[in-house]
Amino acid sequence: MNPIEWKNNILYILDQTKLPWKEDYILCFKYQQVIDAIKKMKIRGAPAIGVAAAYGITLAAIKYTGSNLADYVHEVIGEFAVSRPTAVNLFFAIERMAKVVNSNKNLSPSELKILLLEEAKKIENEEREKSIAISNFGAEILPDGVKVLTHCNTGSLATIGPGTALGIIKEGWKRGKISHVYFTETRPLLQGARLTGWELAKENIPATMITDNMVGYVFSKKIVDLVIVGADRITLRGDVANKIGTYSFAILAKYHNIPFYVAAPISTFDFNLEAGSEIPIEEREQEEVLSFVNKRITPEGISALNPAFDVTPAELISGIVTDKGVIYPPFKENIQKLKEELKL
Amino acid sequence: MNPIEWKNNILYILDQTKLPWKEDYILCFKYQQVIDAIKKMKIRGAPAIGVAAAYGITLAAIKYTGSNLADYVHEVIGEFAVSRPTAVNLFFAIERMAKVVNSNKNLSPSELKILLLEEAKKIENEEREKSIAISNFGAEILPDGVKVLTHCNTGSLATIGPGTALGIIKEGWKRGKISHVYFTETRPLLQGARLTGWELAKENIPATMITDNMVGYVFSKKIVDLVIVGADRITLRGDVANKIGTYSFAILAKYHNIPFYVAAPISTFDFNLEAGSEIPIEEREQEEVLSFVNKRITPEGISALNPAFDVTPAELISGIVTDKGVIYPPFKENIQKLKEELKL
Repeated sequence: MNPIEWKNNILYILDQTKLPWKEDYILCFKYQQVIDAIKKMKIRGAPAIGVAAAYGITLAAIKYTGSNLADYVHEVIGEFAVSRPTAVNLFFAIERMAKVVNSNKNLSPSELKILLLEEAKKIENEEREKSIAISNFGAEILPDGVKVLTHCNTGSLATIGPGTALGIIKEGWKRGKISHVYFTETRPLLQGARLTGWELAKENIPATMITDNMVGYVFSKKIVDLVIVGADRITLRGDVANKIGTYSFAILAKYHNIPFYVAAPISTFDFNLEAGSEIPIEEREQEEVLSFVNKRITPEGISALNPAFDVTPAELISGIVTDKGVIYPPFKENIQKLKEELKL
Repeated sequence: MNPIEWKNNILYILDQTKLPWKEDYILCFKYQQVIDAIKKMKIRGAPAIGVAAAYGITLAAIKYTGSNLADYVHEVIGEFAVSRPTAVNLFFAIERMAKVVNSNKNLSPSELKILLLEEAKKIENEEREKSIAISNFGAEILPDGVKVLTHCNTGSLATIGPGTALGIIKEGWKRGKISHVYFTETRPLLQGARLTGWELAKENIPATMITDNMVGYVFSKKIVDLVIVGADRITLRGDVANKIGTYSFAILAKYHNIPFYVAAPISTFDFNLEAGSEIPIEEREQEEVLSFVNKRITPEGISALNPAFDVTPAELISGIVTDKGVIYPPFKENIQKLKEELKL
């Protein structure tokens, strides 16, 4: 099941807000529908957002009939750039699309359109390969018989391919190394309950859900002995922005001496930022917290906070599983080394 | 608004599972309805459960027409004793009712029935006074302009009177010492969202709700600078059983140097237990986690954990506000001292 499919100049997006109740695709004929799907989290997960944006930009280009395609694509890119602020993969994908336009100014519009589509497909395929590489690197370091906890959704729905943290869990399960999977429901939008539950049930992997406030309890009772989560942005010193709750769980893991791993493709690193405090954190609308699956759960007059992410400092992280291997502390040095090796 | 009212030999219980959507009283004509209400958490909160049980036992006695009232009351007491396992106030109330029966074997059934009703009313009135005393002791130690976080519901609905932790918050607000109130929604049964939200909105106290996984975030951003929670059982060394999540929040508070207070009447202390690990933790049905208001949020095939409480070790607690004053560390010594002073 792909969260995104490109067919006959239409972008099909699996509407993740309707899962697990309905498997419903949105047919995007216009790029504005793609932006709307990203904003409303019908498609979410850092790598998947990047791929959706690449295809969305392609869609805009293909539908364009005016006389200045390059300028138009740049305008559209500007609109995608403000759709969601935290995941850096979005900007990574956008930059690649911009580069295609800038490097091919001499081509005809129809030639440029083809190149844009090819670039989007390339980004998609690369994401798939990266997610397979992450799954393999991560599965290798899992101890035998491990009971693992994950947060939010970092599987096929969030990436393309098996996933990041959830990809590792699926691969670890296949290799017989995981004895049980636990996952948080992940309030307010329940990506754990709705999406991770859906993926694990599809794969027939025995899994147990907990509410977000049970994490300390399951650590203290030794119900779980390793944590893997995804990431939306990682800085040069190894600070990680990820779904709200991650920071709390990392502190709780440290307190109980439980290894805490992050899994993400290299495209999640933001080499322009040193510290996690520089990462912009998206504050979403209060209604998502004040309601539970569209049912209001607290009276009028009560307000809510709704930061979609928090930042976990590098000191709380045991290792970062990337598509190029696992990075261990000291993160600052080792991230710098990797950056130089990859010439990024 | 009282969560419990005794009128004309009927026990009225405000159905807390329907709040904040509906203010609906259950009319209990039989003690079995009271047990059902306790089990299904239509009435909840450690002190309120004790009062409900006392009236439930009275109701059973009053309706009894057989020839051995004392034995019958003891049977009924046995049924209440297994209704919920963690909150010790239930057993405290039950013991007092049993003592009335045991000390008055010479009385006629109708005289005994009157004594039981008087004892239940006494327990209710004492709880009200205790909760006022806790509110005052707690409000005194609040620093000026404090931004306070609480968990679950510990207000009028959970106690009788203003409440324990929430009673302190209401009193602190009245005295102008609190600048803002934050509360967790408290999954799975949303006692924060539904009940604390309802009480704070009724009192026009400006309040902001967060999901349970935002606690580390609000601490790190200094949005909150003090935590007060309730308790369902406290041991001799000061370990505290309270709503699931409390333990995690106490660790997070310690990590951020944020004072973490517990508020509970002396009847919450279990002087028979030394360590928190001896407290029986109620595991409730999975469905409460897997669903919300009858809407399933994760696919079939996924299981869930549902411990209703966790245990916070004394080391993580800054102080325990009781109806006899505030207990500070070293808890073991100071709880022993209080026990001796009160001749318990």
